[in-house]
Amino acid sequence: MRNCVVAQSGGPTSVINASVMGLLSKNNEVGYFDHVYGGLHGIEGILKEDFINLSELSQEDIDKVKHTPSAALGSCRYKLKNYEDSKEEYEKLFEIFKKHEIKAFFYAGGNDSQDTVRKLSAYARERGHEVQFIGIPKTVDNDLQVIDHAPGFGSAARYIAVSVLESYLDSLVYSNNGVFITETMGRDAGWLAASGAVATHEGKRCADIVLLPEVPFDEEKFLKKVEEIYKEKNHVYIVASEGVRLKDGSFLAATKAHAHDSFGHAQLGGAGNALKNIIKDSGITSRVKVLELSTLQRSAFHLASSVDVEEAFTLGERALVLAKEGETGVVSILKRVSDVPYEVEYTKTDASNIANHVKYMPLTMVTEDGMNITEEALSYFRPLVGDLPEYKVLHRQHK
Amino acid sequence: MRNCVVAQSGGPTSVINASVMGLLSKNNEVGYFDHVYGGLHGIEGILKEDFINLSELSQEDIDKVKHTPSAALGSCRYKLKNYEDSKEEYEKLFEIFKKHEIKAFFYAGGNDSQDTVRKLSAYARERGHEVQFIGIPKTVDNDLQVIDHAPGFGSAARYIAVSVLESYLDSLVYSNNGVFITETMGRDAGWLAASGAVATHEGKRCADIVLLPEVPFDEEKFLKKVEEIYKEKNHVYIVASEGVRLKDGSFLAATKAHAHDSFGHAQLGGAGNALKNIIKDSGITSRVKVLELSTLQRSAFHLASSVDVEEAFTLGERALVLAKEGETGVVSILKRVSDVPYEVEYTKTDASNIANHVKYMPLTMVTEDGMNITEEALSYFRPLVGDLPEYKVLHRQHK
Repeated sequence: MRNCVVAQSGGPTSVINASVMGLLSKNNEVGYFDHVYGGLHGIEGILKEDFINLSELSQEDIDKVKHTPSAALGSCRYKLKNYEDSKEEYEKLFEIFKKHEIKAFFYAGGNDSQDTVRKLSAYARERGHEVQFIGIPKTVDNDLQVIDHAPGFGSAARYIAVSVLESYLDSLVYSNNGVFITETMGRDAGWLAASGAVATHEGKRCADIVLLPEVPFDEEKFLKKVEEIYKEKNHVYIVASEGVRLKDGSFLAATKAHAHDSFGHAQLGGAGNALKNIIKDSGITSRVKVLELSTLQRSAFHLASSVDVEEAFTLGERALVLAKEGETGVVSILKRVSDVPYEVEYTKTDASNIANHVKYMPLTMVTEDGMNITEEALSYFRPLVGDLPEYKVLHRQHK
Repeated sequence: MRNCVVAQSGGPTSVINASVMGLLSKNNEVGYFDHVYGGLHGIEGILKEDFINLSELSQEDIDKVKHTPSAALGSCRYKLKNYEDSKEEYEKLFEIFKKHEIKAFFYAGGNDSQDTVRKLSAYARERGHEVQFIGIPKTVDNDLQVIDHAPGFGSAARYIAVSVLESYLDSLVYSNNGVFITETMGRDAGWLAASGAVATHEGKRCADIVLLPEVPFDEEKFLKKVEEIYKEKNHVYIVASEGVRLKDGSFLAATKAHAHDSFGHAQLGGAGNALKNIIKDSGITSRVKVLELSTLQRSAFHLASSVDVEEAFTLGERALVLAKEGETGVVSILKRVSDVPYEVEYTKTDASNIANHVKYMPLTMVTEDGMNITEEALSYFRPLVGDLPEYKVLHRQHK
């Protein structure tokens, strides 16, 4: 028997299931493995031999799971240690592979999962185990190196862009509207916050200000800009990454939104609430609203980007092909060939190129004042986000 | 000339523009008024003669505005005083009507707007002014009397139900998942929180607990239930109205989530954060997440309920017909004829029946323990929410 196992790890996304179903569908087509097992709750479940047989899924169920957000196999937050610190675990894992005649392990996840692929493939090579290890990338944060963009990001970006557009329209119905702040995920990299800049209304960008972790937050410059825009139109729309930082690298959220409630709980407000405090303190306006998009960013499949879903599916298919070609210690990735017409090509990279690296937004994408992204940079985001609804209002607040 | 003016008031919704476009479309069809003016920013704008001529809109623009959330004419938070306290304003308003040959004023809004309709129609009758006043209902909260449900509610309910389903799937991917709390709008009435109970996954309701303003919050009973569910499945999903109250009528948010940040700002957390504090203090689990749906509930047109959009449009059409029939001081409303097949009929009611009243959820809709809604009650919500996505996960966390 030649079986394989696939598992999911880390935070959910809208399309991580599409990747697993892509892999399964390709195997159903080419029949390389006898059974494709799903390991429940990532490597934690594999260590407990908690498998299901995905090869028994009907086509109808495959289609349903492909279009389901979260992590259909369950996930874990487990980071595999080095062999030296965790010998028993490595040995147990390979015993389980042997027992179930598992010849390949596919891991869908971010940095940490690709580090697992790197470690296990190196270990297997050294010991002469024939098990192959292939990574399938995912992360809404889009902070994986080498790959043009990570599956999961496009759908999160689409959710953010649509939510920015709709909350923007909501935020300017009065004659005096104040400041509206939308906080996105992205602790290290600003890709998600930047995708808010894709939202436009009647040709004008909704977000006046976009704050990224890559640009140290300068309170004085920020308040000057907020005041200018507020004076001009009684309304300021800000998109801020949760990871906005001060010059010394500390999170804005930690320094300015830290609060204690009446029971003595420390409450760590987000970057949005920190900015709200700063703006209120400045006296510019007391009318400041904060919207935290929270976990819906990564799981709102109803707004999934179709490009993202199909790419995630294909990366899963391609992972199966890489195994068939005898690869190990690699990750199935894509590279962008062109923005318009949008085109990608599928390839592979060593897991070590992705593991433990972070891809920040290049400062060439950021406007000179550090508080928005350039028009040219939007060509990177647009094909991933897809078309946005076209709305029309009649009052003059937007002009 | 026989002109009319229509304006919007109060918080935005996904379908208040559909109502205005319904009125305009009906007038384009029957030609009762020479011009339909749009008053910008509610009665505030009308008092400033800030009009646009909606009769000049192209069919393409009418369709676009119909499918745009927020308030295309702008809104205001202005509550018209009694005549005795505001004579000048009343007189000015009628002068403006005379000057622009306005014979009817349509006001789309909630309680306060229908109170304006009531006051102005009574004033006009007493003074022999021939101007008619017709109300068009809207409010996401669904707390208007007489009408079966308010336009705007169905779309907000749909947004909540889909968001509950998707965040539910996101919240149970690990083997130990903790407590997830989604906070909805609805300061006085629990309709919006209750609509979260519509979300099901594989035939089971996602929300274990639904907390409504209509049922006084009993901390002991609540914690007992949370603990029971948590022990059973390591996961509890709670939907809570922002208006959850204690026995004495005070908001839970005000008593349990009140915090001061390090700069001395009072920070009023919501009901969700209050519940989080309560659960953490109880020691049941420290893994508690809160999602505040915020303004997207009322403006996420991309998830608008098609029933809601078409009903809002028809209520606008019907308002025009009521004017043509010589009515004044009335509101265009609908009554439900049946749940399955879903059917409504359109009629009218005196503005005084809606103005300054609040429609609470009847306790017959609430389960005996006060912490969810009954299965039968869901037949009220389902036709308004429409079909939800059907997702499929493979891990066993949901069983």
